[in-house]
Amino acid sequence: MTFANVGTLGVQPGRRDEVVEILTRPSSVLAENGCLSYEVGVSDEYPDTVFVSELWVSADAHAASLQLESVKESIAAAMPLLSGEFGGFRFDVVGSPLR
Amino acid sequence: MTFANVGTLGVQPGRRDEVVEILTRPSSVLAENGCLSYEVGVSDEYPDTVFVSELWVSADAHAASLQLESVKESIAAAMPLLSGEFGGFRFDVVGSPLR
Repeated sequence: MTFANVGTLGVQPGRRDEVVEILTRPSSVLAENGCLSYEVGVSDEYPDTVFVSELWVSADAHAASLQLESVKESIAAAMPLLSGEFGGFRFDVVGSPLR
Repeated sequence: MTFANVGTLGVQPGRRDEVVEILTRPSSVLAENGCLSYEVGVSDEYPDTVFVSELWVSADAHAASLQLESVKESIAAAMPLLSGEFGGFRFDVVGSPLR
């Protein structure tokens, strides 16, 4: 079942664009491991937050991705730039009016 | 700029599946008005919540969609089934590691 993970990452003041750069580095590994969509964004309203909205082929594929070497490297690179504030939610996709 | 709207809709106890049914009714109008993706979901952990994750060609397209007749009808149909608790966030997409 398609799985959605959407979240907010608080960043240290002024470090937002560095975090965006890390998260948007081209990666074929993600698609190869079941990532269907991985959108990274920002909002003028919250300058110290990075947003992500992901779709995966399953919750298991998402969980397994956190153990991929390249993903662990990204997390390690971003971690010192984050404030420690995280938000968001996860859900199982059950449909779409577009399909 | 691609715009993301992700949110949670609290529902009256036991009415979740009815809200899902309303939100997932096939609609060509959404795509015709700039909707790129509209995923509706649920989570075992939060049985009285419906989740949505949407992508639009722009924030304006999303805002304008709320005035479409079919969207207003869906909102009117779902409203009595909702608890009034809403969550989520909106952001401008700036990239993806998949592209």
